[in-house]
Order: sequence, then structure tokens, then C-alpha cells
Amino acid sequence: MIKREDFERIKKISAKMIREAQILITDQEADAIDVADFGLNDIEKEGVQILTHFSTKRISAKVLVLLPNQTEPEHWHPPVDDDAGKEEIIRAIAGNLRFYIPGTPNMKEGFIPEGKEDYYTMRHERILKPGDQLHLPPGTKHWFQAGPEGAVLYSFSTCVRDGFDRFTDPNVVRATIIED
Amino acid sequence: MIKREDFERIKKISAKMIREAQILITDQEADAIDVADFGLNDIEKEGVQILTHFSTKRISAKVLVLLPNQTEPEHWHPPVDDDAGKEEIIRAIAGNLRFYIPGTPNMKEGFIPEGKEDYYTMRHERILKPGDQLHLPPGTKHWFQAGPEGAVLYSFSTCVRDGFDRFTDPNVVRATIIED
Repeated sequence: MIKREDFERIKKISAKMIREAQILITDQEADAIDVADFGLNDIEKEGVQILTHFSTKRISAKVLVLLPNQTEPEHWHPPVDDDAGKEEIIRAIAGNLRFYIPGTPNMKEGFIPEGKEDYYTMRHERILKPGDQLHLPPGTKHWFQAGPEGAVLYSFSTCVRDGFDRFTDPNVVRATIIED
Repeated sequence: MIKREDFERIKKISAKMIREAQILITDQEADAIDVADFGLNDIEKEGVQILTHFSTKRISAKVLVLLPNQTEPEHWHPPVDDDAGKEEIIRAIAGNLRFYIPGTPNMKEGFIPEGKEDYYTMRHERILKPGDQLHLPPGTKHWFQAGPEGAVLYSFSTCVRDGFDRFTDPNVVRATIIED
């Protein structure tokens, strides 16, 4: 749950961050930015902001924004019907971006949100600088986090079916409820 | 066929145009820009410059550059094996961009390259301004052209198999030969 005023405030901040990252977006796209708190009710700690360029049955391009020190909860994209699951390519554009994926634990710059140790199980850290890309094959468990400057990144992918995403934290609810 | 010096010169101009369009690219990506003359041996008239962010079996993202008044020859993406054919979304970023697709002839701003009337059969014009997007379902015949400022655009798509593209002009050879 997120208050309408916080939703609108964070939407505006996100559009500003995207434009400061020199990504061209239309006013219509800026106005349609989604602020997702994953039902965890603490948007500035756990959440993400999403601007969708387009989304078809086969491909999608989005711009994601993380506020300073904001964390997107650990999740993965399972197979759905005859789809092997979402394949995703991350392209970092601005700020500090930390990705956590399967591999030898080497966490150094990031942190696990307080009290959430059980819900962030991937501890292999990849620091993505502007221009760096990361390929996430279907089913790859991952979570990501911004440093103190926040981060702006692209997510290019096959078909997006957010409702089918799986999260390690059982408290996650994908749809954000806005409280007026 | 294109002379090595022209290839290198146009590569540099293209990287400069992409950066002036405020798209973040790495030096490695800039150095790998492809200059495609489609075997027509007149790159500044018919051709395109391609910077590939990534290309997997399912998705691809490229930045395309057109020099002033340069035209990409008419083509379409046919089905290949169990793939319905490349689905593509164009996103205009900078300059003047004219797309020609199936529909009622309404050509106004663009022109057919001299003597090539038979090879440019789509005459429905769509002018794309920065931030505009155009969805090209598989099999859609299309060609595109820049105005006097040139153009920079994204091409987001499903699997790229350039070797399978079909062109209206029978003289097209997809692989560019560089002459040292």
C-alpha cells in the first residue's frame, strides 16, 4: 500500500532521474510510470519504478528507476505455458547499480534490507556501471539495489508477465495498492 | 563494396551522431558499428549504420543511424523455421525519420532514390519524431529514410537473422564487402 501523494511524488522524481540520465521519454510515458511497492508497504526501501516503452507478446523494453538505496526484491521468471520464461537483458545507464545473481558469494558494496535475510538468498554481486550489460536467462534468481545516487537502467526482455513472477519473500503481492 | 576509408569515416560520424542524440554507448560498441551498403555500392544514398547493444536467439536491441538523406532499402522479415519472422519496434530518437509501410499512398516529405522506383513499392508515409514508436509485425514490407539532418533510432526486435531478410531490389547483397 502506498499513499497517493507518495506515488505521485516518486513518479515525478523518477521521470526527472530518467531525463537527467539523458534518456528520451515522452510526457505521456513519464505520466504512466508505475511505482511498485510489491505489497511490502515501504516503497523507499523495497520497490522499483517502471516506465514501459512497449510490451508485446514477444518483446518488451522498459526503463527502471531505483531511488537511492532502494532494493528490488529477489525474484525469477518461471516458464509459462510454451514460453521458457522471461529472458532479460539489463543495461545500466546512470548511478550505482548492484545486481545479485547465482554464483560464489562476494557481496561487498550492497546490503540486505534489515530483517529480510531469508528473502535475499543470492549473494553473488555484480556492480554495473553505465554501459554495462547483464544477461539473465529464464529462471535466474536475481535482486538488485541502487547505491546512494540511485540508478537508472534499461530492462529489455521477452514477453512480460509480471503476474507470473515468483518472489522469495512470501509477503510479496505484485499489484500495488494506492491509498487515496 | 565500400572503401575502407569510407567505412571508417562513416563509422566515426555515426558514433558521433549517436552520442549527440544522448544515447549512452561504450567505446567498444562505437568501434563495432557496422556500415551496411547492401551491396549497392553507394553507401551515402542507400545504406544504414548499425550499433548492436545485444542479440540473442529471442531478443535484440540496436541503434540505427541514417546519414542525411540516406535510405534503407525496402525489405521484410519472413518466417524462419518455427519463428513467425522478426517483429520489430522502431523508436525514433533524433533527426527526421520517414517510414514507408503498407497503406494508402501519401508520400509527401520523402523521395524514391533515383532510378529505383521498382524497388520501393510501399508509399504510405509515417513521419516519426523523437519519442515516436512504430510497431512492425513480422512480414511487414518497409523502408525508411532520413531527412537533411540524418536520423538516430532504436530497433528493438525478436531474433535477428539478417541473412534471411528479403529485399525488393534483387541487386541487394546483405554482406558488405570492404575494399582495402
